[in-house]
Parts: sequence; C-alpha cells; structure tokens
Amino acid sequence: MEDAISLKEQLLQKIHSRNITVGVVGQGYVGLPLAVNFALADIPVIGFEKDAKKVEWINGGRSYIADVSENELQSAIGEGRLCATEDFARIGECDAVIICVPTPLDEFRKPDLKYVEDACTTVGRYMKKGVFVCLESTTFPTTTEDYVAPTLEKVSGYKKEEDFWVAFSPERVDPGNQKFTIRNTVKIIGALSPDGMEIGMDLYAYAVETLHPVSSPRVAEMAKILENTYRLVNISLVNELALLANRMDINLWEAIDAAKTKPYGFQAFYPGPGIGGHCIPLDPFYLEYIATRFNFDLTMIHTAGQINTLMPHRMMIRINFALNRIGKALKGTRILFLGVAYKPDISDDRESPALKIIDEVVRKGAIVSYCDPYIPFIKTEAGHTFDSVPFDESTIAAADCVVITTRHSRFNYELILANARQIVDLQNVYKVPHERVVKL
Amino acid sequence: MEDAISLKEQLLQKIHSRNITVGVVGQGYVGLPLAVNFALADIPVIGFEKDAKKVEWINGGRSYIADVSENELQSAIGEGRLCATEDFARIGECDAVIICVPTPLDEFRKPDLKYVEDACTTVGRYMKKGVFVCLESTTFPTTTEDYVAPTLEKVSGYKKEEDFWVAFSPERVDPGNQKFTIRNTVKIIGALSPDGMEIGMDLYAYAVETLHPVSSPRVAEMAKILENTYRLVNISLVNELALLANRMDINLWEAIDAAKTKPYGFQAFYPGPGIGGHCIPLDPFYLEYIATRFNFDLTMIHTAGQINTLMPHRMMIRINFALNRIGKALKGTRILFLGVAYKPDISDDRESPALKIIDEVVRKGAIVSYCDPYIPFIKTEAGHTFDSVPFDESTIAAADCVVITTRHSRFNYELILANARQIVDLQNVYKVPHERVVKL
Repeated sequence: MEDAISLKEQLLQKIHSRNITVGVVGQGYVGLPLAVNFALADIPVIGFEKDAKKVEWINGGRSYIADVSENELQSAIGEGRLCATEDFARIGECDAVIICVPTPLDEFRKPDLKYVEDACTTVGRYMKKGVFVCLESTTFPTTTEDYVAPTLEKVSGYKKEEDFWVAFSPERVDPGNQKFTIRNTVKIIGALSPDGMEIGMDLYAYAVETLHPVSSPRVAEMAKILENTYRLVNISLVNELALLANRMDINLWEAIDAAKTKPYGFQAFYPGPGIGGHCIPLDPFYLEYIATRFNFDLTMIHTAGQINTLMPHRMMIRINFALNRIGKALKGTRILFLGVAYKPDISDDRESPALKIIDEVVRKGAIVSYCDPYIPFIKTEAGHTFDSVPFDESTIAAADCVVITTRHSRFNYELILANARQIVDLQNVYKVPHERVVKL
Repeated sequence: MEDAISLKEQLLQKIHSRNITVGVVGQGYVGLPLAVNFALADIPVIGFEKDAKKVEWINGGRSYIADVSENELQSAIGEGRLCATEDFARIGECDAVIICVPTPLDEFRKPDLKYVEDACTTVGRYMKKGVFVCLESTTFPTTTEDYVAPTLEKVSGYKKEEDFWVAFSPERVDPGNQKFTIRNTVKIIGALSPDGMEIGMDLYAYAVETLHPVSSPRVAEMAKILENTYRLVNISLVNELALLANRMDINLWEAIDAAKTKPYGFQAFYPGPGIGGHCIPLDPFYLEYIATRFNFDLTMIHTAGQINTLMPHRMMIRINFALNRIGKALKGTRILFLGVAYKPDISDDRESPALKIIDEVVRKGAIVSYCDPYIPFIKTEAGHTFDSVPFDESTIAAADCVVITTRHSRFNYELILANARQIVDLQNVYKVPHERVVKL
C-alpha cells in the first residue's frame, strides 16, 4: 500500500503542477474537443487516432469537427500543448489516458464493443505504472468494472487501484449546441476507488467547470444511458401519437404546445420522421442488451425501439398517400427530399431517418433527389449515392413531391409552398392546413 | 343568424357586466375550487351536486376538499355568490354551465363515461337558450364534438353554435400543489366555433389568469391526455429500470440525480411502488380506448400500463424477499405499511398502489396494519378495512417488516430505522445501503 499511496501522491502532485501528459484515445466529435479543452488549460495532450488524415489535419491546425473552431484548434496546437499521433506506443508517455471511441450497434442492433476492446488492449499494452484511465464512451453498466479494469490488469500486469486507477465519465457532447459545451456542461464521474475519484476530479477540473461524482462507474454508465433512453422513449411516444392524431384530424404539435403551457411536470417533445444521431437511436439498446444477461426484458425500450424502427417505413407510406392524391404511384415518380441531417442546421447525417426513407422509396421505384446545404453528398445504408441538388424554384417545381425531412433554417419555406406540386411536411412547417400539404 | 348573433351579444354583455350565473355541475376536487374561484371574482355561482352531504357542507361553509380553505369557501358563501344545490332544474337559471364530473375506468379498465352522459342529459333537459356549456372532465379526443354537443342538441332541441355554445377546457388541478392553483395555472380551451371561443375566453378570465386557446375541443382533449400520458410513460420507464437496477446493484435514484445534472433535454422522474391518483393511472387509457376505434394500437401506453399494473405484485415479491432474509414467509407475518396516500403529504388514497400491495400480501396470508397521519381508515379494492395505527416505537418494533410506501414528511425515518426488524424502502428514504433495508 505504501507504494500505491506514493504513486497516487505523485500523480496528484503532477496534476496540481500541470506537469502531466494527458492521452486522449480517439479524436472524433468527443475526443478532439476534449483534447482541445485540456490543451487550452495548459495541459500537454497527445491525441491518439488511427486515421492518418485526421492526425494530419489536427497537426496542421485544421478542424474536421464543427464544434471545434480552427481558432481554438490552432491556439491549442500553436502553444505546443496538443499534438496528434498514430503511434499508440506513446501512451507510455501519458499520466492519464481518456478513451473516447465509438460504441456502435452491429447490423443486428446489438452492442459492438470492438473499439473499446481495441482501446483497452492497446492502453494496457503501453501504459506506464501510476496512470489514470477513464472511459468516456457510452456503454452498458458494468463495462468499466467487469471489462475495462480486468482487461487493463491482464494486459499490463499491473494491479487496479494500486498501480493504476480506472473511472468512467460519460461524454455529453451535443453536436451543434452553442450554449452547452464540454467546458460548461456538468460532467458525471464514477471511479472504482476513492483514490481514483480524487485523481479524476482533480484532472477533469482543468477541462470542465463542474463535476458530479457518483458512487461507482456503473451508476455513471446508467445515468448516461438513462438520459438518452428518456429521449428515445419520449420521442417514440409522440411519434406514435402523431400517427394516431393524423387519423383523428388533430395537429399533435398544437396539442403539445398546449400541454407545454402546464407550468410543471411536462417537457415537450415533437414528432418527426424518426430518431437520428449517434446517441439516442443506439444507447438504449446497450441497456436492453445487458438486461437480458440479468434475465430482464426492458419492455419500454423495446417498444420505443419498434416504433422508431418502423418510422421510415411509415413515412414512405405517408409519401405514397400524398402521391395518391395526385393520382401517382411511387414507381417512376420524382421525389425531392429537403434535409438529410438528423437535426436542423448541422452537417451530421449519422442514423438520419431521411436516409432510411430514401432507401424505402427507392426500393419502390421512386426517382430520388435531395437538397441539404450542409451535406454535399450522401450514401444510404442500401448503398445508393446522391449529390445535393441546388435549392431553387425549378428544382422544387420539377419534383412530383417534395418531402421536408429536416427543418434547416436556410430553406425558404414560402418558396417551397409556392412551387411544390405536393408537399409531405414531416416537421410541421406549415401549421395551417393546405390542400397540397400532407402532414406526418 | 340574426338571432344567434343577438344571443351571443346578450351573453357577452352579461359576462362583461358580471350579470351572469355560472352553474358548475359536480362539486368535487375540480368543481368546488372552480366554483369558489368564480364566486370570489363576484360571479354568482350555483354548485350542482347529487351528494346531499356535500351540498350541506358547502352551504354551511365547510370544506371537504383540502385545496379549498374554509376561509375562502366562507367568503364565497358569505357574499351570497356561491350556493350549492341538489336541484338540477336550476340549471335553467344558468348562463354558463361547466361540467366537472368524474371520468373513471370500469373494472375492465375501459372508459366509463356514465357521469358525463348523465350530466349532458341533465344539462340538455334544463338549459335555457343562449347558454355556454363547457366540459372540464378529462376524456378522449372527439368526446365534446361527437358526444357532448349532439346530446345537448338532441335533449334540448336547440341548435349548437346558434342557440348555445360548446367548449372543452381541461381541468389541471394538482391536489396539494401550493404553488399552482386554478387561478395561476394556464388553462387550455378549445371551442366548437369562434363565437364559443370568444364567450369561453371572456367567461373563464374571471377565474383564471391566463388562457391558452386551441383550434378545436379535440386538440384540448388530446393536450390534457398527453400531459398525463407523458407522466405515466416516464414513471413506468423508471419503475421498470429500477427493477433492473436493483438486480445490477445500482441505486437508480443516484443515477437519476446524476442524469438530472444535464442542463437540457432531461426531466427527472423517480421510481415508486406504482402510480396512483385520479389522473395518471386513468387518462392514458381513454386515449388507448379511442385509438382502437381508429384501428390504431398505442403500444407505448399499453406497455407503460402493463408495467404499472404489475408493480404492486412485484412489490409484494420484494416484501417476500425481505422476509426471506429473516427466514420468514408472508403467511402469518406482521407487516406494517407506512403511508397509503398516493403521494406524500396529502390525504388522497385513490388508486394508491399501497392499497393494492396490501391486497396482494393479505391474499398471501400476511397480517397487515398501516399508519398514515393523513388517512384515518381505508378500504381496499378487495374490501379489506383497516384503521390507521399510531406512529411510535412499539408499533414499528412489533412488525416483522415495515414497508415504506408513501414518503410523508411527518414520519420519523430515523426512528423507523432504529426500531424496525426489516424495512422495505420503496421510496429511497435510506440512501446508504443497510443490512436491514431492502430497496425497490
């Protein structure tokens, strides 16, 4: 124990004197902003990244993440605080290693932990004694305790919470959010031991204004999934209700705005063509997956998932119904999609429902084009590729049907209404009923 | 039309000069506070009520509703503005009639509209020409348009929106809420016609600070059910997650408190033994019911309902598990329930999960007692009756197991912990694990 205390005190002293090197494994939309935040607080950071192009961009001061400005990045690089590398052996130089790798679902919608596994094996291989290791990737409760820590022990030969410390601190990056950034969003952290918690709190204090400690990594893992499960469940609820409301001739958006006037106990969620992005459509299924190992079926998540999975198909039916009004089939008909990003005014099309709807209508023989000022080209799940067309009168008038999938503020919605033959409005753009507009 | 305009102008003039009589049908937890609010604004009100005892109490200045103080009631009565009556023929004296009757579920959990039907038939029979009729009872969308208005037309022989006007304005009473009362809670209103909306807005302005008009009664009906569906779904979600979290050795309350530190996009709901009260366990099933008539299955509400229905049974199993730790069965064992109200610090046990859990353990042969400082006696669904026992050391020590079902602030939780043999803590009273405490 003498040794461990001394290692801990050594690390704390290094942290307090800013005499540490932080390694951030994965330089994506989580890892890069985090690395920049540490660097801007005068902490030397090495960004580990397998993609040579990203390494080149970072070291050249060029940002590929919308939420990281080139100014910030260049300032971090310029002071020599941040550098990126493909050489994972340099993990041996780091006093703290933060893992920010993707945790996707595989094609059967099961958790795919291969990036976490790779990262843990690599960190375990190169890490030095006395290092603090923290996972930020969203994953099911027990991952840090039952997988990360044992793997690091096994590969490194060191003993957890004596020779090194392990924690989980979920990322809360919300792409495009101007108000809440890494720095001013409260950060949850759960460590395996009180020592690890002390180290983690002092370290993260350089990058984050407020930390919220919890009693264990699994509580932190659960908290993160809970946040996104809450969103999945509530969006799925209003999406299902919107389909009913349409049949009942009720504008659900109007009912939601009315419900929102209740001064307590209600939070508004609005319908849409489905759920996109890197978090909400994925995270809850990590929890559903681990639940089965505890002989437990999470019926709410399962039901919400079913609704979300079916939304693109249902939206295809809605388009079909709009075409029916002008006596047309999907086959051979020109459909223009406006917006393929998964939310307004961002350039991210991961898991975007628009892409799934496009696959659905292409499968029925429709002739598809799309326009998105933020996304110049797309490739759908089924492998179809498109380039964005210009937004103008003639493009809109040339389509048999225009589908508003993402409500970008750059679109001129009056122009669309004036020129489109039929509109499928999946975002409640047009609040007043109109004969050429079909709503979700 | 001349006639209709003149009727409308007559009614508006009466409203503006406070020269109207408002009838409120049903003097329960919605109708009585509403009647008092109008009376305190110098509007003459007749409270119609079938229960002779309630009529006697009101006219005697005695309140039987916790949220109506005797001071307020006596002031309303004293000025001669409010009187109650069993004589429904006096509806003929009223210029506006507001229907505030219960909309329960029957024993097969289907909407039971008999009180609304009775009220509409009675109002139709006695109402005069030129009256404004508004329903406040929570019910499925289409009720006002497809049932209330036609029934009033048929029984009265008058023509809707010419001879009388119809609207829906959902009650938003939250029993025990000190901050938000009828007066300062925004009130949604949807009328059948613009004339009806004008009348309704001007009338309700006497009792409510802010009104939120919507385009139709069905939107207002949907908005109200949406509010409570949101709550049912989110409480059911955390209840299901709590059962999993227990198996995973995670305190879900801690995870919820951590998730709550996210500064956007999250609203905290906490687990409990089930959902009680007059709204949340009932309203969503009105929507599920009407959905079937539109060939639509509301899977989210259905799933949430299943979780809630099973909670008392699952809590019985939790009690059984606590007893198992001291080598006891449910049969012949003394179980003390603390709190039978459906939420803390109120005297309302409608749909309270505590009563259902009591029935479950009685069925297994347990010897039950309960203590609730707000509720002196209870009768369960199965017909068992109990009187509340005193809250003291000896009562707690005498039980084999104490179950904390409602977290009343009057209970001394340290005293409970010091004296109870086993505690089943369904409200996360004891945050630190304790060998004698089993959590939800």
